[in-house]
Amino acid sequence: MTELELIRRIQDRLRVHGDRVLHGSGDDAAVVRAGAVAVTSIDAMVEGVHFKLSTHSPADVGHKALAAALSDIAAMGAEAGEAYVALGLPDGFGEDAAIELVDAMEELAGRSEATIAGGDVTAAPALFVGVTVAGWAGSEQELVYREGARPGEVVGVTGELGGSGAGLLLLDGLEVDLPDGERDALIRRHRRPEPLLAAGRALAEAGVSAMIDVSDGIATDAGHLAERSGVAIEVRLAELPLTPGVEAVARAAGRDPRELAATAGDDYELLFTAPPESRGQIEAAARQAGSRVTWLGDVAAG
Amino acid sequence: MTELELIRRIQDRLRVHGDRVLHGSGDDAAVVRAGAVAVTSIDAMVEGVHFKLSTHSPADVGHKALAAALSDIAAMGAEAGEAYVALGLPDGFGEDAAIELVDAMEELAGRSEATIAGGDVTAAPALFVGVTVAGWAGSEQELVYREGARPGEVVGVTGELGGSGAGLLLLDGLEVDLPDGERDALIRRHRRPEPLLAAGRALAEAGVSAMIDVSDGIATDAGHLAERSGVAIEVRLAELPLTPGVEAVARAAGRDPRELAATAGDDYELLFTAPPESRGQIEAAARQAGSRVTWLGDVAAG
Repeated sequence: MTELELIRRIQDRLRVHGDRVLHGSGDDAAVVRAGAVAVTSIDAMVEGVHFKLSTHSPADVGHKALAAALSDIAAMGAEAGEAYVALGLPDGFGEDAAIELVDAMEELAGRSEATIAGGDVTAAPALFVGVTVAGWAGSEQELVYREGARPGEVVGVTGELGGSGAGLLLLDGLEVDLPDGERDALIRRHRRPEPLLAAGRALAEAGVSAMIDVSDGIATDAGHLAERSGVAIEVRLAELPLTPGVEAVARAAGRDPRELAATAGDDYELLFTAPPESRGQIEAAARQAGSRVTWLGDVAAG
Repeated sequence: MTELELIRRIQDRLRVHGDRVLHGSGDDAAVVRAGAVAVTSIDAMVEGVHFKLSTHSPADVGHKALAAALSDIAAMGAEAGEAYVALGLPDGFGEDAAIELVDAMEELAGRSEATIAGGDVTAAPALFVGVTVAGWAGSEQELVYREGARPGEVVGVTGELGGSGAGLLLLDGLEVDLPDGERDALIRRHRRPEPLLAAGRALAEAGVSAMIDVSDGIATDAGHLAERSGVAIEVRLAELPLTPGVEAVARAAGRDPRELAATAGDDYELLFTAPPESRGQIEAAARQAGSRVTWLGDVAAG
């Protein structure tokens, strides 16, 4: 099978979602009806750096690469639009594996109302997936940046933390006595993170002042918010919402569960700041979008 | 130097060009004032597949990766907008080499009125550069697709062909007796292709019916136009406009110069079809944009 035949086989599996795409894959470029402002992020994942093929299936890799890029769009409060995918395929990574990878991306794209509108396929010494996602908003005012946090505000986070880090420890062979359901959920959390697009939009509408997705770990990501906003952010580690099973896994690894949850990253929850009087409104908006909010910190002068 | 420090050093070297970028590099995503339609293409170049570091400097690699992606925007007749760059850096490819690569991209971006608005940097087993370029147009009608060629039309190409392929043969060590200026120009043609953004827009305005950039070689690229348009395209190889020096290089390699020019690719000229009565207008528009047109084929029923 030539590269061109593989590209055609991939194109056959991709669907257009929504009504933005005017001219899709197969020309020099894709053409899309734009919103007022474009919100664009690029992410690359490389075998041996971000994942191992011994613990991640091709589908896991495809899902996770797209999820990470979509998560950046969620953290801006934008709507997902189109994804553009560069695939580097090593010798021995067969055509069926490439299709499995693409199918998982297409499945997540469809659920996210995003279209994989273009791509490039090349040989490479190790598997890599580069994903650029374009999102859209009706105006810049609808979006939330990292830089809007103000002293006196409170810090919140969606969902639970540490699950992805604990899942990775399990995948790397750590022996822990866990209920099967908890073990599977932790591993799935690591392999198949979900971008919180609906929650990101809901939080932006409900008036959060600054937002970031938790990809590097809440300790580092809170630092990014603080630096860009020119404030100090204090996060109370004791109040970190832990994914079930994280305590047991951390203990088996000889680590503090809250330190693991704060530093392991890859949870793709949303970390944000807001005026204290907005708390009720924000909790309600997040709940509507399927996410629970924990208030776990304060913003002070930087 | 950590990855974060390198990213900061890169960010310091990037400038915003034009007035589209509302919120640049350094947040979860870049925010850009959109045109009516977005025109987006992705390209990846990998060491050992698309280039060798023994014959291409980091600056050559950066330039060429961005040029190839911008060339796709040119072939649509769109205006260049923003570039998003994923860099995979192997051990031993130092920080200064990365900066040299980025500087060459920034130099080309500036000249192309494009902004490098976001990126990702990761370790990788071999150097790779993935570039997504977003271009813009005021309406879909301003653009030219691969699929508009009609029987009875003529086929034109900008500039000269074969230069990039001949340059690669020289870089790979072929011994040819050539004037120094010709040798340098051929090698430069291979290492530093220029995306024909102004010519692409001028040709689109002047009424070409289908267009593609010559990246795979005119033989293959004419086939893409024919297939997407549902027509047959005949290219008269004898009329291929050859870059000076291609004849001598092809002869030294024991190849037919026109076969080399038609198949080697990477020239990034624009190949297009048009109604015969538009020829004068198209030649004038191309000349205004700094390109010469050669008419070298016909469109017939497919």
